[in-house]
Amino acid sequence: MQLCFTTENKGKFAEASRIASEYRVNLRQVYRQKIEIQSDDLKEIARFAAKEASEAIRRPVVSEDSGFFVNALGGFPGPYSSYVYRTIGYEGILRLMKRVRNRNAHFQAAVAFCKPRQRPVCFSGIVEGVISRRPRGRQGFGFDPIFVPNDGDGRTFAQMNAKEKNLISHRGRAFSAFFDWVNSRHGPRLT
Amino acid sequence: MQLCFTTENKGKFAEASRIASEYRVNLRQVYRQKIEIQSDDLKEIARFAAKEASEAIRRPVVSEDSGFFVNALGGFPGPYSSYVYRTIGYEGILRLMKRVRNRNAHFQAAVAFCKPRQRPVCFSGIVEGVISRRPRGRQGFGFDPIFVPNDGDGRTFAQMNAKEKNLISHRGRAFSAFFDWVNSRHGPRLT
Repeated sequence: MQLCFTTENKGKFAEASRIASEYRVNLRQVYRQKIEIQSDDLKEIARFAAKEASEAIRRPVVSEDSGFFVNALGGFPGPYSSYVYRTIGYEGILRLMKRVRNRNAHFQAAVAFCKPRQRPVCFSGIVEGVISRRPRGRQGFGFDPIFVPNDGDGRTFAQMNAKEKNLISHRGRAFSAFFDWVNSRHGPRLT
Repeated sequence: MQLCFTTENKGKFAEASRIASEYRVNLRQVYRQKIEIQSDDLKEIARFAAKEASEAIRRPVVSEDSGFFVNALGGFPGPYSSYVYRTIGYEGILRLMKRVRNRNAHFQAAVAFCKPRQRPVCFSGIVEGVISRRPRGRQGFGFDPIFVPNDGDGRTFAQMNAKEKNLISHRGRAFSAFFDWVNSRHGPRLT
């Protein structure tokens, strides 16, 4: 059994592979365009994508969907974070947050796994934090330069290396839960 | 043959029905949740939704997807206009456009029609205009209060009644093209 991860995002794949290797799981990046539905529920998006891809390529498939949710903006940009990042960037978020006191935000990730002709299973991870006043750091991707996790030391995600970020990030938490489950159920078959 | 329009948006249905009646076509609103894929291409979203729904309910189905594209914001909010409207509203767009000189924008609509086990056909409409400095008017829905069409008389869409808006709107143009096609092919069968 091989573990195919459908994503076109290099940053996501790099983060997930690093975690996978700690669990001695082998991830393979599959570039097939994934079908993402429009929904406010990340788990629904991830489950739909994993199910659709596993039927199409007839293999077990891992899919991940994540979002950045800003409290004062009603959860925006949420499930559409990658589109919003491509258009207005984190500069757009900083403009919308100008003179806004409540700077609470969170990242959320949903990892779905599906075998052909089976129902998908799903794991999620969340990290709470605040929006910085200015972008800081050059590592990571997306909104990382403006997000300061509450569990950290005041640095943004973009000021942490991959190992530091994975330890507390939404994606790190969701993938760790998933790989724990994989190892507990499948053990050596996947390693 | 019955023409089912899958939408949960009352404003959209009202606008489409008004145009349909001019073409002596009967539209029926179907509340079934439509599957919207995440794509930058409205036609692809509309086609996927019409195809999926026509297979599911085994009837010919009309689906419409529209978006509001702001040039200075890289096309944002585009295909995710309804989500963006629900979260940051037109107030968010006005904040992002503060002190921005290039106020060009357009609305685009794609109307797809699909019969079970056939390929969908698609019609589109577009209306160019500018973003107003302040919201004006209470008619229509969504971003109508901040959009001034170039083909109009300086009023926003929200300052026009349904008939006036349909004459020049993206949705009016896409549905008119579709109903023209329906009548030319099916004539009395649909009237």
